[in-house]
Amino acid sequence: MRKVAVLGIGQTKISEHWGISLKEIAGNAIFAALEDAERESVEGIFIGNMLSGSLNKQENLGSLLPDWAGLKPVEGVKIETACSSGGSALRAGLIAVASGEMDSALVVGVEKMSDAKLLETTSALATAADADYETVHGLSFVALNALIMQRYLHQYGWDHVDFAPFSINAHQNGARNPYARLQSIITEKEYQDSRMVAKPINLLDASPIGDGAAAVLLVAAKIPQNNGISNLVEIIASAVSTDTLSIHDRKDPLRLSAAEISARRAYSQAGIEPDEIDVFELHDAFTIMAALSLEACGFSPPGQGPRLGLDGEITPDGRIPISTFGGLKARGHPVGATGVYQIVELVTQLRGEAGENQIEQANIGMAQNIGGSGATAVTHILKKN
Amino acid sequence: MRKVAVLGIGQTKISEHWGISLKEIAGNAIFAALEDAERESVEGIFIGNMLSGSLNKQENLGSLLPDWAGLKPVEGVKIETACSSGGSALRAGLIAVASGEMDSALVVGVEKMSDAKLLETTSALATAADADYETVHGLSFVALNALIMQRYLHQYGWDHVDFAPFSINAHQNGARNPYARLQSIITEKEYQDSRMVAKPINLLDASPIGDGAAAVLLVAAKIPQNNGISNLVEIIASAVSTDTLSIHDRKDPLRLSAAEISARRAYSQAGIEPDEIDVFELHDAFTIMAALSLEACGFSPPGQGPRLGLDGEITPDGRIPISTFGGLKARGHPVGATGVYQIVELVTQLRGEAGENQIEQANIGMAQNIGGSGATAVTHILKKN
Repeated sequence: MRKVAVLGIGQTKISEHWGISLKEIAGNAIFAALEDAERESVEGIFIGNMLSGSLNKQENLGSLLPDWAGLKPVEGVKIETACSSGGSALRAGLIAVASGEMDSALVVGVEKMSDAKLLETTSALATAADADYETVHGLSFVALNALIMQRYLHQYGWDHVDFAPFSINAHQNGARNPYARLQSIITEKEYQDSRMVAKPINLLDASPIGDGAAAVLLVAAKIPQNNGISNLVEIIASAVSTDTLSIHDRKDPLRLSAAEISARRAYSQAGIEPDEIDVFELHDAFTIMAALSLEACGFSPPGQGPRLGLDGEITPDGRIPISTFGGLKARGHPVGATGVYQIVELVTQLRGEAGENQIEQANIGMAQNIGGSGATAVTHILKKN
Repeated sequence: MRKVAVLGIGQTKISEHWGISLKEIAGNAIFAALEDAERESVEGIFIGNMLSGSLNKQENLGSLLPDWAGLKPVEGVKIETACSSGGSALRAGLIAVASGEMDSALVVGVEKMSDAKLLETTSALATAADADYETVHGLSFVALNALIMQRYLHQYGWDHVDFAPFSINAHQNGARNPYARLQSIITEKEYQDSRMVAKPINLLDASPIGDGAAAVLLVAAKIPQNNGISNLVEIIASAVSTDTLSIHDRKDPLRLSAAEISARRAYSQAGIEPDEIDVFELHDAFTIMAALSLEACGFSPPGQGPRLGLDGEITPDGRIPISTFGGLKARGHPVGATGVYQIVELVTQLRGEAGENQIEQANIGMAQNIGGSGATAVTHILKKN
């Protein structure tokens, strides 16, 4: 297969975009990515989206977006793997270009969640869990994560406040990101005093939903090199793994085995060890997920994830900087778009264009996008060329 | 890219499956395809489905199905392009195997539509149309097709009864297919006397929805050849094209330009002309769509599609046999599954295993799966090896 590089990136601010529709939000990210890549056309569009059917009463984005963006008759397809839809769309576009089936592909993640009532949104998000065995009991998605966090606190003896650094770091970084939904810093006291959502998860453990879109333009890596374009970012690993959908079916609900397997495969493809990762955009939908992801990807022994936060290892100048533009927690989590935001942010870091959020020595970055409570894990590793 | 062959096929009867859930229906098709291929594992699952989120309150099929089918931790993904989701899933699996990213892929189309109230189903199906410009006016999907058919009758001077042969042929073939939802033959008088749905589309112009799943196992074509497996069916062309989502945006709403373009590309990839196609599984969601598809794919001049039916050219012994197992009209149209049913049926014909439905001299077959009112068209050509 051919090597694939990211030639262009684009994103919209994550917010409540009452004045524009899903297709316009997606279009804005598409136009930004095309402009960044100095291209006017692509050969295919891969759309990461989870909820357009239920919340926006609009499927068939695979023809709506090419139509809206003036790219018709190129092929388009919507890819869904719950909250990892963006990462899965990237992988689909990557394979299409790597295979030679097409020379360029636009990967767009988009979600518009403000159109629906909050209860509808909560119900729609719960479709990421098992309808027959989890949702039927009234478990919302945050409730499932609360069960996991409660068990983690009990089994490993951590206090809730030990998770504060994940939230504080995300807000610190998000405050400097103009595209972030939440741009305010928080204190440990504010974290502790925050309103409870589903015990022990409080408001500052949880990521905010929102409306937003991000896009990346993929090309065969050799093509732009031949055209003399420098500063290319190459995708050097792509791996997906799955686990049971229901958390009660897992031998150990405190281990994200899909994340472990996909990260291990990605390291192997890239020929690197975890300590060679300079920046890690992880799936911190809840603070507990940040800890579990760090453990699954080999940055911490099981049960010791919070230690990385307490020791200052996850901040921009730490050993393994995470959520460098705010992560899901502060940048925001428009679910199907999140995986593509992660890639846009990694490329920005690896290009050295991250401004105040720039990590020093950013040569290799990893993104991990998770769908369901660890049911699908999509891992990509990118490298500055 | 490598050549890709279909090694195994499986399908369930299309019906109202009240006793089993979506994952069980999909599982039954998966198990049948694995058994047919004499395999126990695959490297990835590509799921064509449109409505699981809205009708079954279940997304994340990409991890649910590997989990249910005992194939975890293989990667899985749901692909949606409205009613062409099955065809798009086939294309995604095809590219993944052709690229060398994986050596085997299971493509599953599944839809469970009986769980919801009929009005919910009608609303959910309408998400294939443009929410901002079509559905907002109360246009259902059948109403959109009725507008197209009405215009066709007016512009080309046909009578409604001239479309009867499409429905009669589909029912004739479906009556011999144990997997078909409708297994009864119909007469021209019954067609004419059928209840009106949305003028001029009556009940016997329209395909029935249903619950069902179909699956195909794809492998690199050389691998089974090396193992001495004969009777292989190879996929020799795959092309997708898009048109405007709204029909009012088209210069000529009576031409399916996406179907035209994707068919032309497929012929070019396969190096054949339309008259070399021995059997054509087309997207006869409505009789008007059968006529328009035949015209778009070069079997008839524009406006003359009904002539093929009237002249007996579409029956099993005609020049271009269509809907040989009943088509969408009689086999049934579980929307996201339909594109994979088409492939299962083509493979059955090309293997010479179609029994009473067998077409003579079946060497090359074409399937065309359409999403929206012609917005996405997915065309595949298969050849007996």
